[in-house]
Amino acid sequence: MKIFELAREHALIDSAAATLGWDQETFMPSAGNDHRAAQLSWLSAKAHTLATSDDWKRALEEAEAANDGSDATLSANLREMRRQFDRATKLSVELVARESEATSLGKHAWAAARKASDFAAFAPHLETLLAIAREKAERWGYESEPYDVLLDTYERGSSSARISKLFGDLKPVLVGIAEQAVTRTKSHPVVLPAGPYPIDQQIKLNAAIAESLGFDFEAGRIDTTTHPFCTTLGPRDVRLTTRYDEDDFTSSLFGVMHEAGHGLYEQGLPGSDFGLPSGSAVSLGIHESQSRLWENHVGRSAAFWGKWFPVACDHFPQLGQLSLEDFLRFLHRAEKSFIRVEADEATYDLHILLRFDLERRMLSGDLKVKDVPGAWGDHFKELFGMTPPDDRHGCLQDIHWSMGGLGYFSTYTLGNLNAAQLFATASADPVISAGLAKAEYAPLLSWLRENIHRHGATYDPAVLIEKATGAPPSTEAHLSHLFGRYCA
Amino acid sequence: MKIFELAREHALIDSAAATLGWDQETFMPSAGNDHRAAQLSWLSAKAHTLATSDDWKRALEEAEAANDGSDATLSANLREMRRQFDRATKLSVELVARESEATSLGKHAWAAARKASDFAAFAPHLETLLAIAREKAERWGYESEPYDVLLDTYERGSSSARISKLFGDLKPVLVGIAEQAVTRTKSHPVVLPAGPYPIDQQIKLNAAIAESLGFDFEAGRIDTTTHPFCTTLGPRDVRLTTRYDEDDFTSSLFGVMHEAGHGLYEQGLPGSDFGLPSGSAVSLGIHESQSRLWENHVGRSAAFWGKWFPVACDHFPQLGQLSLEDFLRFLHRAEKSFIRVEADEATYDLHILLRFDLERRMLSGDLKVKDVPGAWGDHFKELFGMTPPDDRHGCLQDIHWSMGGLGYFSTYTLGNLNAAQLFATASADPVISAGLAKAEYAPLLSWLRENIHRHGATYDPAVLIEKATGAPPSTEAHLSHLFGRYCA
Repeated sequence: MKIFELAREHALIDSAAATLGWDQETFMPSAGNDHRAAQLSWLSAKAHTLATSDDWKRALEEAEAANDGSDATLSANLREMRRQFDRATKLSVELVARESEATSLGKHAWAAARKASDFAAFAPHLETLLAIAREKAERWGYESEPYDVLLDTYERGSSSARISKLFGDLKPVLVGIAEQAVTRTKSHPVVLPAGPYPIDQQIKLNAAIAESLGFDFEAGRIDTTTHPFCTTLGPRDVRLTTRYDEDDFTSSLFGVMHEAGHGLYEQGLPGSDFGLPSGSAVSLGIHESQSRLWENHVGRSAAFWGKWFPVACDHFPQLGQLSLEDFLRFLHRAEKSFIRVEADEATYDLHILLRFDLERRMLSGDLKVKDVPGAWGDHFKELFGMTPPDDRHGCLQDIHWSMGGLGYFSTYTLGNLNAAQLFATASADPVISAGLAKAEYAPLLSWLRENIHRHGATYDPAVLIEKATGAPPSTEAHLSHLFGRYCA
Repeated sequence: MKIFELAREHALIDSAAATLGWDQETFMPSAGNDHRAAQLSWLSAKAHTLATSDDWKRALEEAEAANDGSDATLSANLREMRRQFDRATKLSVELVARESEATSLGKHAWAAARKASDFAAFAPHLETLLAIAREKAERWGYESEPYDVLLDTYERGSSSARISKLFGDLKPVLVGIAEQAVTRTKSHPVVLPAGPYPIDQQIKLNAAIAESLGFDFEAGRIDTTTHPFCTTLGPRDVRLTTRYDEDDFTSSLFGVMHEAGHGLYEQGLPGSDFGLPSGSAVSLGIHESQSRLWENHVGRSAAFWGKWFPVACDHFPQLGQLSLEDFLRFLHRAEKSFIRVEADEATYDLHILLRFDLERRMLSGDLKVKDVPGAWGDHFKELFGMTPPDDRHGCLQDIHWSMGGLGYFSTYTLGNLNAAQLFATASADPVISAGLAKAEYAPLLSWLRENIHRHGATYDPAVLIEKATGAPPSTEAHLSHLFGRYCA
């Protein structure tokens, strides 16, 4: 079908850009950056032109007209392609260019403002970016508030109301769990034996563990970068990245398990449908569920370390100074931090709750940009009982807004909720749970392949979760997991 | 100017493809290959379409019409772009597709035939590839024989007659030098102390040496591959590759010095003209002169090792079992080999003389494909006094013909001649020779930047050599170098 041919061509361009982007973040020498930006800009323009072309439009219309609805996957593909085409073409070329410039300037200004801890220097950029986000929301249309349609970009079919409900259920319990977790950590603090934990040993251990989770190194790699990510360069070419801390091997390892979770999802998507919705990840909240499941539910479990702690001690002899029990205490330590990316499982979602509330109010106009630092401080105090010393430790810490990523943060917590719900359902299966007890993950991975990966983007995320677990997304499994880990 | 804008766009596409090609040969996981081939084919089609488009034709015509000849670089750029455009558009789409298919099948058949040492299995492919080469030569037109115009693809302005003259001068002397070099080696054989020479130490030493030659690591890297190469991903992004042998550190090191020679040329081209002839390497024979100059004239010299031998001994303590004198003997050993890529300085060019003669006769029709193995054996016997035991050690050893690379081999020896001629001229300068004596290469590199690199492709290779050295390309300096090394 013509529209599928065009979509596959689009995927060739996109994945070529991904390859250049991967190199840019891993190996590219510094002086190569300007030319790389020009190459990426050329590819991005080609991809955009193709996906908004008259050819594309006609081919999509023809396919829609010929579709009799008998093939559910075909119908899902056309539905999603229509959604994406309408989204792309409802924005004027002028608006796209204006957004591109604003985010480029915004990122630059944000980096300087964060360094100087000077929110006022970033504020005008945030105003502009908010105005553009609102303009996009107006063009796309929304049900009850602008946040809805922005969120829908990342999390198809979700809404402010749904998130509000989930986060409302979460908040009171979470505050209590976090409090208990922090108290417990203080009562029995554990520190990792002193380094160095040699990087070559970390690389070996990480690779052995990623392989044991099922990551296919014939169709993927792990490299080094500053800001770890997972990227897909082709249906059988998935690249993970991590960074190394010679004083703490768990930093790169949990990074690898997190990215391997993303990578296992990408490796499990139907390769023959690469470039079509049915061969693509459905949403950020589902993607993050896969990374969090392997990182937290598998990687921080006692059963996992029952197998891997002795292996880690072989790689890092000093680790033998700790008992397995104390090592697990170290992994399960909790602490109140001003910085989201340093937060542990017990406190992480509180950071997201705060951002969701502020973003929604900024977009609706309830919260003025100039009032953001104050609102951040008040809200942080309410959740954590402390106030950030400056904006660098507060509303300037994340890059997302400066890139126009409004409506994005909430998907992190959706990922945590989905991870817990999927893991609880899967581990109720006796074969899977017997595997987990022996740190053997083939049964768990098969379940995820069958219930999540193979479906690509054919179902809305919430539908996918309900089909896999028998219930719509809820906070129950996540709270139960955190309670068991920190309060039992 | 419009035509320059188009040429720069073409260079963006080409260099994006180069990035994908670099990854394919260095890091790409094996299962990624099919998708990578599809990405590269898309990019290649885009580049070809652009460079043969009506837009391109019109823009070139407009620039030619507006050119008053007062700017020599502009005129040179337009002249070369016209040459390339005419070359590209004189071939029909059908012929290009036929060639692409023939080389794809040819490479595959060649690899199998070489493995089985079965020339008959490759012969029909060689027939086809020869017919296509002749067809191209007919379409492009040539002065006296088809070889001329094929050679001109790699070595602008050269001809069979020129090469014949040079190679004719070379042959009798070279045969004598090779004989003496082999005899001398036998009279005082030296072997490298047993390994291992750890790869991490090789990497460190190679990088230190590449840097000392002037290779800019802010604008380049060295990675690992099976078949070493140098590739340019942007005006300030040049990637070298090498391979490691734990039993012999000189294998990766001379590989790096060779590729660094190519890389220094690429880093020295005018970056602001990237994508234009004035910002591009002019020919294979000039490119190879740069790699050979650094590899052989610098890297195998006594002065170089006066500085670097003690450093190498620090990296590889067992090396201290050799005296510097014996180590140099090891580097200057000569041996008759059936295989070109294993040949040393003393015997290398003999391999090229043979190939030039055979290729020329094949193209003119004098030599039938079925007679190639016999002709190879006879010619090899004449030059080396021995006969290859089978075709795998004879006419099936090189990949070039199977890729349609007819007219390519002679540029290797042109590179050797040019390297010697440039090095002799440069080292007559007292500042440069004082640098060489201390293994300091900034003056030599400046001279190459000034006399070769900065000119890009604005002069024909022979003109460039004459401007730099005061004399047209000749065999004198090369023979004198070999005589000094092997017979003095």
